[in-house]
Parts: sequence; C-alpha cells; structure tokens
Amino acid sequence: MAVKVYGIPMSTATRSVIAALIEKGVEFELVEVDMKAGAHKKPEHLKLNPFGKVPVYQDEDVTLFESRAITRYIATKYEGQGTPLLGKTTTERALVDQWVEVEGQNYHPAVSALNYQLFFRKIFSGEGPDEAAVAVNVEKFNAVLDIYEARLTASKYLAGDFFSLADLGHFAHTEYFVKHSGKSDLITSRPHVAAWWQDISSRPSWQKTITYGSS
Amino acid sequence: MAVKVYGIPMSTATRSVIAALIEKGVEFELVEVDMKAGAHKKPEHLKLNPFGKVPVYQDEDVTLFESRAITRYIATKYEGQGTPLLGKTTTERALVDQWVEVEGQNYHPAVSALNYQLFFRKIFSGEGPDEAAVAVNVEKFNAVLDIYEARLTASKYLAGDFFSLADLGHFAHTEYFVKHSGKSDLITSRPHVAAWWQDISSRPSWQKTITYGSS
Ligand SMILES: N[C@@H](CCC(=O)N[C@@H](CS)C(=O)NCC(=O)O)C(=O)O
Ligand SMILES: N[C@@H](CCC(=O)N[C@@H](CS)C(=O)NCC(=O)O)C(=O)O
Repeated sequence: MAVKVYGIPMSTATRSVIAALIEKGVEFELVEVDMKAGAHKKPEHLKLNPFGKVPVYQDEDVTLFESRAITRYIATKYEGQGTPLLGKTTTERALVDQWVEVEGQNYHPAVSALNYQLFFRKIFSGEGPDEAAVAVNVEKFNAVLDIYEARLTASKYLAGDFFSLADLGHFAHTEYFVKHSGKSDLITSRPHVAAWWQDISSRPSWQKTITYGSS
Repeated sequence: MAVKVYGIPMSTATRSVIAALIEKGVEFELVEVDMKAGAHKKPEHLKLNPFGKVPVYQDEDVTLFESRAITRYIATKYEGQGTPLLGKTTTERALVDQWVEVEGQNYHPAVSALNYQLFFRKIFSGEGPDEAAVAVNVEKFNAVLDIYEARLTASKYLAGDFFSLADLGHFAHTEYFVKHSGKSDLITSRPHVAAWWQDISSRPSWQKTITYGSS
C-alpha cells in the first residue's frame, strides 16, 4: 500500500506532513478531502480522524492523525533515508523535541491566530479581523520571536546546528504570515530569525510543498 | 550530578515530569522556584527557560524545558528501567505520540482553561469565573471527551492496551478538574473515561506525585 495523505494542499498541518515526506524521499499520494463540502465531518473521514480534521496519514502499518505525531513517525520509520530530522544522540533528540513543543505550545497559538485574523478569516467568512485579537496575539508573537532571535543567535537552527523536525514544523504558518499578514516585519526585523527563515524556506522540500497540488 | 526539577509541586506541568520520574524509578531533587516572588521571570531562571515558566529539568547531559519533551526524554533515557512508557514497536510509538499530541492540542487547551476559570483564578486573583469562557470550554471539552469515550471503549488506554506517556500527560489537569471544577460529571458520566481515570489516577506514581512536597 502506497503512503496516503488525506488533506488539502493549502492546509498548514497537511503541508508539514508533505514537507516531511519530501525531505525523507518517500513517495505518497495526496487524497484530497472536499472540505468545502464538509467531507471532513462525514462518517467516512471521522473513521480516520475522530476530530474531523486534516491531515490523516496512512500506510500499510498505521493510520495516524495529528501532524506533529505524523512527522515524527515519518522521521523515525524512514530514519535511514533522506534528511536526518531527529538528531543523532539522545540529547540532540531531546532538544529537537523541546523545540517541537515550543512550536506547538507557543509559536503556533500566536501565529495561527494571526493568520486566521489577518488572512484566512476573509477567505472563509468574508469578515475582516477582530482587532483586539490581533493586538493580543501580536504581543504574544513578539514575545515568542524575541526568544527565537536569542536562540538563533546562539545556534543556526532551533535544536542546534542541524536542520530538524523542529524547524520543519514552522514552515507552513510562517509562510502564510510572511506573505499574507501584512506584518512580515515581525520576522524580517529580527536579523537571526530572518536569516533562519530565508534559509529554511529556500529548502527544495518547502518550495515543492507550496506548489503541490496547486494546479 | 543528580537529576534536578525546577518547579513547584502544585504546577500541572511540573507534576507530569515528577510522575514520569517516579514511573521510571529515577531519583531527583525538586528545586522549588519561588513563583510568588516572581523568581521564574528573573535572569537566573530565564537562563534555564527563556519563556519564564516551570518546569525545567536538568541532568549531567542537558537542561530542558517543555514538560512533554521532558517526559519523552526521561522515558527514552531510562528506557531499560521502570514502567515502559513509549510503546514497543514503531507503530505503537506513533500511537503514543498521536495521543500525546491530542492531549497537547485538544484536551489541554479546554481543560486548562476550565481549571483556570473554575479553580486557579480565584486563588491567583480573587476573581470568580468568566462564565462565557466557561461555556465555550465546556463545549470544547465535551466534544473532546466524547472522542475519548469512543477511544477508551475500543482500548484500555489511549494508545492501546498499555499505559504510556499519553495517559500520563493527562494526570495533572484531570486531577484538578475532577476535584475542584465542580464539573466532575463531565468525566464520571462517561463510563469508559471514568474507568480509565479511576485506573490511571490510582497508580502509585500519581498518588505519590500529588503528595510530593505538600508538607
Ligand atoms: N493539531 C492538528 C490540527 C489539524 C487542523 O487544525 N487542521 C485544519 C486544517 S490546517 C482542519 O482540518 N480544520 C478543519 C476543522 O477544524 O474543522 C494537527 O496538527 O494535525
Ligand atoms: N508548555 C509548558 C507550559 C509550562 C507552564 O505553563 N507552566 C506554568 C505552571 S504549570 C508556569 O510556569 N506558569 C507561569 C507563567 O506562565 O508565568 C510545559 O508543558 O512545560
């Protein structure tokens, strides 16, 4: 059975999984879920992911949801091929995990709220941003980015001097934020965050991910 | 160097780390951070965790923050002793990771908001709950718990028929919720969730964790 990813190409969480598969050189099929028609809330999809979300990953061994668990599984199962994403030692792996968690618990809540208010909300509901929510989350995101600036001054990537799952998890929301929020200066005004973003977003895996299925 | 955990015994994230150390039979020292005096926002602590939070874990190899990364590190480093927490095969590990992520991304946002409104807020600021926030999060938590009820009907624990990191990550907030939210029926009215909570919360590790440092 070929690897299947159920999702849509514009979904941030789906894009993380696609980028990981490309980094590891794993062939896959993107099975498009008709989210506009609500297919993600229908019984067939709920059997794959009871939360009614995308992505879902499926291979001969397992069906999985939650993008960060999926990317870790791909990095582990295909450890012997493509870009190493986990770190070599137990200590390196712990630092990768730490920054994966920082993304999930700190970076993601702020940036996803901003992308929703400043970009997706208009597309999905025709409404403009809730300015109070923008202000709160700009403040949160600035605080997170100050910590990233210090970290990326000390090491080239988040977990150390090697690209890893931790960096990869930042691709999708940062791309939308830089291109569509009107607030890209939060990234570009911080020299080490800007250089890191320039570096990771030029990776072939990411450049391929953002064109994936956009036909 | 002995294992050190910087934190306070009532902190949920600190409690996760303590429970993991006890499950693995690892000796440690709890270094209390004087949070009432704001010690977690002072330079000395910010050197350990730039986010100014607890817990921080430290041993001879590494200094780590983010409780879910810390518990995974403990489970990995001490894989050969105590309770196995990671799963045996790559597939089992993926399911553990999936449910660790479900906790972090779905269960935790709802239950932590409820515990804040219904319990901690009074202690920290003397204020009663924001009823609108309670209503939104009761709805979210009910939706999550319906999915847990279905899952725990199919398997004894979240990742399968074995206790794992995924279950352990639910200890701390569920304890406060059941004891102090006034809404414990959300747990007890769902037979499989209730049986699971009864089972995991009777583990000696958890019973020891909640008395830890409470003298
Ligand atoms: N924590 C999940 C989040 C998945 C998620 O929120 N997916 C979005 C698309 S990026 C979705 O399916 N939204 C539809 C919905 O929530 O109904 C993950 O990382 O996979
Ligand atoms: N995602 C972090 C959260 C840590 C956290 O929020 N800790 C709380 C205590 S449970 C804290 O330090 N709060 C103080 C603050 O945020 O200023 C983890 O899992 O370790």
